[in-house]
Amino acid sequence: MSKFILNIHCPDQKGIIATVTNFIHLNAGNILYIDQYVDRENKLFFMRLECEFVNGDFPEAQFRKTFDKAVAEQFSLTYELYNLEDRPRMALFVSKYDHCLYDILARYQSNELAVEIPFILSNHEDLSEIAKRFDLPYYHVPVTKETKAEAEEKQLEILEKHNVECIVLARYMQIISPKLIEHFPNKIINIHHSFLPAFPGAKPYHSAYERGVKIIGATSHYVTEELDAGPIIEQNITQVSHLHSIQDFIAKGRDLERMVLSKAIQLHINRKVMVYQNKTVVFS
Amino acid sequence: MSKFILNIHCPDQKGIIATVTNFIHLNAGNILYIDQYVDRENKLFFMRLECEFVNGDFPEAQFRKTFDKAVAEQFSLTYELYNLEDRPRMALFVSKYDHCLYDILARYQSNELAVEIPFILSNHEDLSEIAKRFDLPYYHVPVTKETKAEAEEKQLEILEKHNVECIVLARYMQIISPKLIEHFPNKIINIHHSFLPAFPGAKPYHSAYERGVKIIGATSHYVTEELDAGPIIEQNITQVSHLHSIQDFIAKGRDLERMVLSKAIQLHINRKVMVYQNKTVVFS
Amino acid sequence: MSKFILNIHCPDQKGIIATVTNFIHLNAGNILYIDQYVDRENKLFFMRLECEFVNGDFPEAQFRKTFDKAVAEQFSLTYELYNLEDRPRMALFVSKYDHCLYDILARYQSNELAVEIPFILSNHEDLSEIAKRFDLPYYHVPVTKETKAEAEEKQLEILEKHNVECIVLARYMQIISPKLIEHFPNKIINIHHSFLPAFPGAKPYHSAYERGVKIIGATSHYVTEELDAGPIIEQNITQVSHLHSIQDFIAKGRDLERMVLSKAIQLHINRKVMVYQNKTVVFS
Amino acid sequence: MSKFILNIHCPDQKGIIATVTNFIHLNAGNILYIDQYVDRENKLFFMRLECEFVNGDFPEAQFRKTFDKAVAEQFSLTYELYNLEDRPRMALFVSKYDHCLYDILARYQSNELAVEIPFILSNHEDLSEIAKRFDLPYYHVPVTKETKAEAEEKQLEILEKHNVECIVLARYMQIISPKLIEHFPNKIINIHHSFLPAFPGAKPYHSAYERGVKIIGATSHYVTEELDAGPIIEQNITQVSHLHSIQDFIAKGRDLERMVLSKAIQLHINRKVMVYQNKTVVFS
Repeated sequence: MSKFILNIHCPDQKGIIATVTNFIHLNAGNILYIDQYVDRENKLFFMRLECEFVNGDFPEAQFRKTFDKAVAEQFSLTYELYNLEDRPRMALFVSKYDHCLYDILARYQSNELAVEIPFILSNHEDLSEIAKRFDLPYYHVPVTKETKAEAEEKQLEILEKHNVECIVLARYMQIISPKLIEHFPNKIINIHHSFLPAFPGAKPYHSAYERGVKIIGATSHYVTEELDAGPIIEQNITQVSHLHSIQDFIAKGRDLERMVLSKAIQLHINRKVMVYQNKTVVFS
Repeated sequence: MSKFILNIHCPDQKGIIATVTNFIHLNAGNILYIDQYVDRENKLFFMRLECEFVNGDFPEAQFRKTFDKAVAEQFSLTYELYNLEDRPRMALFVSKYDHCLYDILARYQSNELAVEIPFILSNHEDLSEIAKRFDLPYYHVPVTKETKAEAEEKQLEILEKHNVECIVLARYMQIISPKLIEHFPNKIINIHHSFLPAFPGAKPYHSAYERGVKIIGATSHYVTEELDAGPIIEQNITQVSHLHSIQDFIAKGRDLERMVLSKAIQLHINRKVMVYQNKTVVFS
Repeated sequence: MSKFILNIHCPDQKGIIATVTNFIHLNAGNILYIDQYVDRENKLFFMRLECEFVNGDFPEAQFRKTFDKAVAEQFSLTYELYNLEDRPRMALFVSKYDHCLYDILARYQSNELAVEIPFILSNHEDLSEIAKRFDLPYYHVPVTKETKAEAEEKQLEILEKHNVECIVLARYMQIISPKLIEHFPNKIINIHHSFLPAFPGAKPYHSAYERGVKIIGATSHYVTEELDAGPIIEQNITQVSHLHSIQDFIAKGRDLERMVLSKAIQLHINRKVMVYQNKTVVFS
Repeated sequence: MSKFILNIHCPDQKGIIATVTNFIHLNAGNILYIDQYVDRENKLFFMRLECEFVNGDFPEAQFRKTFDKAVAEQFSLTYELYNLEDRPRMALFVSKYDHCLYDILARYQSNELAVEIPFILSNHEDLSEIAKRFDLPYYHVPVTKETKAEAEEKQLEILEKHNVECIVLARYMQIISPKLIEHFPNKIINIHHSFLPAFPGAKPYHSAYERGVKIIGATSHYVTEELDAGPIIEQNITQVSHLHSIQDFIAKGRDLERMVLSKAIQLHINRKVMVYQNKTVVFS
């Protein structure tokens, strides 16, 4: 039995839903889930569909070939097709903070995250013990101003060797270079410890404290060249008051960061996020 | 130009989405919005669709006739068809509390609620001044144990005379009789001042206070014969602590009741709620 | 019986709490509520205390005189003393949006707000009907670039005539002049329709939509000379998604604005907000 | 330097705050934090105070002796005194679910929890690997109907041997006996996977799903003899919809359970929870 996720985007036009659902139907498939969205202002169509082909096999290559001819060409469709049961290979980049790392690894162990984690990479040695504890390879790739280019080469090499599909920056405290972004467009998930666009850049909790806000947040987004300005995947907030010191802000923020990053990872690996015009469509 | 909301429910079966969307397409219609849900356990299919027919008229009667033949019979579909621009006639039942009433009337004045409110009905005189303030008829229908049956007759008469589609119990403190419910199945919206199923019945804030809960809630549901046990449309909560007295619980509850009832009304009048097995499907 | 709210701020020093509570105790008073906060970094002390003097009268003037001598001078205390049962006189400034106005007036009618509202003032005629409906005076003071200074004179005159203590800008769409701010320091409450400091200035919902945020907010703050940068009293948020249009953002925002402004008003009139260094201490 | 947490409860009476704060003051202490609460209905007074004695030592025994004479006897005070820097010894009881366990251990490793965890105890072998991973002793104490009494003896023995102060039931799926509760009154913290008092007992997610609620919750409470009816420490909720299966409820619930239990543990170990009349006072 074949099961697929099919993500479609194209100019909005009449008859797309009918044609796509007909296609599944005519090929003896069953639609498990369908969600669609039309951006009326920009006349764009988005659809996410899960389907299964119960009787006999319908290999991915055959799906693509048949779908191209029957549907895609007619509507100038762009689409992504994923095998529903594939587990994406997801690399973890960390620095010195361990709370997001622990959270992801615990979920991985508990089978909450349907991924393969081939390795942990860090610009510091500090968290290597945790990798050992969870029996994962740990690459220490130091980054200094002078060695940055070289370090990136090394990172790319490791990523390619392990056949990585996406990267999670679990409080990785280095700016990602355009080259790496280019290799993983909308595939590098960052957690920023503020409610973007408020307080971008470094030390957002300190800025939030100074400003006397009553709510702090965290934001997970795809990394783009402009710092902290990539498409937002998920945000959440928590309340603070004058009673909370900067240390309290940071402690409360850790919980936010854990939850928001973990939610963003789930959305990404379930192929529920589609990016356009620096924004996301996040299907439920 | 004709614009419709089409709500469909039927046993789940292959090809429904394709057939329905094809139908719209072939009749030169345009799908504005589509959402669907499959209850896999019970093998039931639900769909809500907004569509427009731009070129020339497609009257409701004609839609029904064509749709019955082309789609509904084949799939044993049950469906409801609404003109997207119709404003449902919604009666307000109140007793002595005015906060939900004020909230609804303010939204009505601000054009936030696409309804007609033909009248306010109450078992008490207390709120008649508010009706006058908003230029609405106010029916005072007292209810005592002895006159309950008679009062219900009177209510039904008023409801029929004003051609009412749905009833909002904006803190109406009387139990609705089976007869009235039968006339308005899943059309009577109540606000209960607790997080059901916790604290059903009277004085829920007092019970919540006694129990020392840290969160209180409000629940909007359709009225069924079993008290406070009808299909839930919307719920929301707020935090409380030992600092809050019962009076504080009640004051915080008023805000919850306002918000939850108003949200439930919006969902109902936009035909986003479908009921089955004492539960709701609430489309977004 | 006399009942007071006593708000104290001064440099932090040993023995303040003991001395103040002793003072109440020795004058046969009873502490109903006490809350305090120490900003350790800046070595500042804040306290809010409610007390009653049950046996016989303890007039405000006498309290002040006794307290000055026994406590205030020793600790270089600054304090405010309010009669617990006084209802502050609160003016409402509006423009064309009516949702915050309706919400405040409904709460006023329902006796949820312990204030006197002497009048509504607007730079437009649009909402005069609502004032009539609630039997309140309505001053129409148009503001143009040329007449701005003159209009402010008129506003000040009206405010003084009505002996106003604080001003609520219920979506009043004019920038408040330094002169008016000077007359009402930390007494002018504004509602900004975004989660400050994200999206200050005009059209924040449009900016939020463009940025693709997943959460929108509203912020109530005291008006200071720097636009949208005054001390924050209250903030709240709600979730949005790609499904929501700018119109949806605005509609959801209206509910936020209502709730946040109303909460901020409650905090202000209960004397629970103390301002320092452009931040607030908000007692619970 | 000595630092203490002082938790006081007694009948409400005039002059308590003054007397206690005076006591600290006269003994050259400094109040770091003070919070108090009066239950007016039951005329009960509660206070939590953090203080430090900077100049020279003020040993705990001496504090107690001095305080008893100067304050406690006069006001019929009950109080608890804790050294602010002590780390309570906290046992973890688990069964087969690992998500709460992982969360607690990760926070323990990250130094977010100021406790000592002397061991993990379970009625199953399943999670022993995790104990090994975190270098903690793991006691496997099977419980059957026949061996329940004997198992409890064994548990008590282990608890005493390790000098345990409090017990966290991190999804421990056995009912705690009155005997164990008696040894640890208001010291056994449970996490119940529903928004109590809704859905007590087993399988609350299934019940919530059946009822069609729109919000699910989790509740952390102290264990008392009546099942799921002990004093509530912390609650939190998350939204669900018809789209979520029971499996989704359970997955969302895991995050709630983690957060709520961890928050309750923080409150307990910071001595911020005081229990009376089956309710809690939770200081902020």
